[in-house]
Amino acid sequence: MKNTQITLASRPDGMVKATDFAIAKKEILQPGENQVTVETHYISIDPAMRGWMNEGTTYIKGVEIGTPMRAFTVGKVVSSTTRDFSEGDLVSGMWGVQTHATVDVKTLSKIELGTESISWHLGILGMPGMTAYFGLIEKGKPQKGETIFISGAAGIVGSTVGQIAKIYGCKVVGTAGSDEKCLYLQEKCGFDATINYKTENVDEMLSHHCPNGVDIFYDNVGGPLLDTVLTKLARGARVVICGAISQYNTKQFYGPSNYMKIVSARGILTGIIVFDYIAEYPTAVKQIKRWISEEKISYEEHLVEGIEKFPEALKMLFTGENFGKLTLKVK
Amino acid sequence: MKNTQITLASRPDGMVKATDFAIAKKEILQPGENQVTVETHYISIDPAMRGWMNEGTTYIKGVEIGTPMRAFTVGKVVSSTTRDFSEGDLVSGMWGVQTHATVDVKTLSKIELGTESISWHLGILGMPGMTAYFGLIEKGKPQKGETIFISGAAGIVGSTVGQIAKIYGCKVVGTAGSDEKCLYLQEKCGFDATINYKTENVDEMLSHHCPNGVDIFYDNVGGPLLDTVLTKLARGARVVICGAISQYNTKQFYGPSNYMKIVSARGILTGIIVFDYIAEYPTAVKQIKRWISEEKISYEEHLVEGIEKFPEALKMLFTGENFGKLTLKVK
Repeated sequence: MKNTQITLASRPDGMVKATDFAIAKKEILQPGENQVTVETHYISIDPAMRGWMNEGTTYIKGVEIGTPMRAFTVGKVVSSTTRDFSEGDLVSGMWGVQTHATVDVKTLSKIELGTESISWHLGILGMPGMTAYFGLIEKGKPQKGETIFISGAAGIVGSTVGQIAKIYGCKVVGTAGSDEKCLYLQEKCGFDATINYKTENVDEMLSHHCPNGVDIFYDNVGGPLLDTVLTKLARGARVVICGAISQYNTKQFYGPSNYMKIVSARGILTGIIVFDYIAEYPTAVKQIKRWISEEKISYEEHLVEGIEKFPEALKMLFTGENFGKLTLKVK
Repeated sequence: MKNTQITLASRPDGMVKATDFAIAKKEILQPGENQVTVETHYISIDPAMRGWMNEGTTYIKGVEIGTPMRAFTVGKVVSSTTRDFSEGDLVSGMWGVQTHATVDVKTLSKIELGTESISWHLGILGMPGMTAYFGLIEKGKPQKGETIFISGAAGIVGSTVGQIAKIYGCKVVGTAGSDEKCLYLQEKCGFDATINYKTENVDEMLSHHCPNGVDIFYDNVGGPLLDTVLTKLARGARVVICGAISQYNTKQFYGPSNYMKIVSARGILTGIIVFDYIAEYPTAVKQIKRWISEEKISYEEHLVEGIEKFPEALKMLFTGENFGKLTLKVK
């Protein structure tokens, strides 16, 4: 048996392409001291991956050319040299786009699986779910009766933010790129209103749906949409920057020329770095599981099967073709 | 005797021009009920004036064509119909660029003059001084040992922010547009370091002078400089937007494409609207007067004489020709 890897072949210039990646077969290494070998079950496809393909920033180092693409992963321990982990243990980590990996145990977390699929620990119970939970609660500080606007609302983060905001008593409005996604947000996620940014006038519809302005703007998209929303802020608004998916494949990152609207609204712009809340993940996971069991939160996955499908799955994320949390099923 | 007014003749397209203004002579009106007539002693020249010349925004209405240009003013009551104000009372208000005005008393504040010139109530003891004080203390939240970077540091707001930040124990670094201004900031205002943005590489010098990053960025300038500073933020940085003087005469307001650096720095972007602190002005005025008397704060004025000089004085502000608080001396 071999370890199949998807490696970074070249740094993309603009939109990611299939040829930015290569496939490699390697030996599966035996675990050394305090290491285990894991087999990969699911790989998460996340917007942050586009940044990881770049040279790197002060925030995080880029993936090195010729090495496996970085990714959040879940799977099973198949060989262990430590008593802390046994064969058969389910774990999450960041061992990248490969079918097997031999890694230090300190890079892994054990998963206590309930009735959910293990893949959920890459989505609503994993990094994206935590991003939604802590970004909204800690940075957005939702109050009953406030209006929240969410860009990229049909994504895993956006749809979770919206549903938690409903639980907090907010009016929830979001944008998505198709009528099907908008319908899903309204019917399954309880959004009060949605805007199809591809077919509707976002500026007008925002004024229509948010007559008292936007108290919380949870931004996953960036670009001109960010500028439009800045003109609609209510007094004391919180702009929570989570991502800017519209800009990750562009050569010139769009800067919001309306940033002084934050000042006149007496608002603040802040952002969410989910890793700052690692110590509080278990509380959040428990809470989200409870909301799911109470049917207050609905969750959709978009599974793509086969590790070799990774390049096209990643591209789907940026073209908006996915519906639900995009996840690669490996085993 | 006539009232000489400088009125708005046309809305500028780009940089302000002399022909955007006209001169008018009007009768001096007798005060009606709860009104007084004032004679103007000094008129403040402020960056915000450029915005007031536009059509208007949600924040504040533009000046109407053919009416006196809006301005902060100080002067003396020369005729009164109310017992609350007597002839000879010194007052501040916003009666605009004219030698006389007949106004409702509720638009005026009395000035209790100490040994200072009344013109100081348009500067360090007026709106710009209050902007520096509350913007720094309430929004910047300076802590001993932190590094503050101030753009447009030689302006009245910037130089006051820097001097108060020194009192709070910060390392103070600022940009200005001439060696003379930089020298003034270092020698008279106690700045730890300055950068002449016209002759030095701001990016490199910022890294040099702020090796641990920028904890507080007090921005008066906007534009590409804002983007450069965003790459230098320390963890937990506060970006306080006060103004964007580099952009007020441009057709396309510059948006900071590095805004996500605020997120990775776990920082916030906020701003100062000085009118929110009106109730606390007396405390701040008292404190600033004390600091001046203790020689902890130095203050320079740049007086231009004659109301007809208003258009060229305003232009000086945007070309950076002034040195110290730009003020029009009328009487």
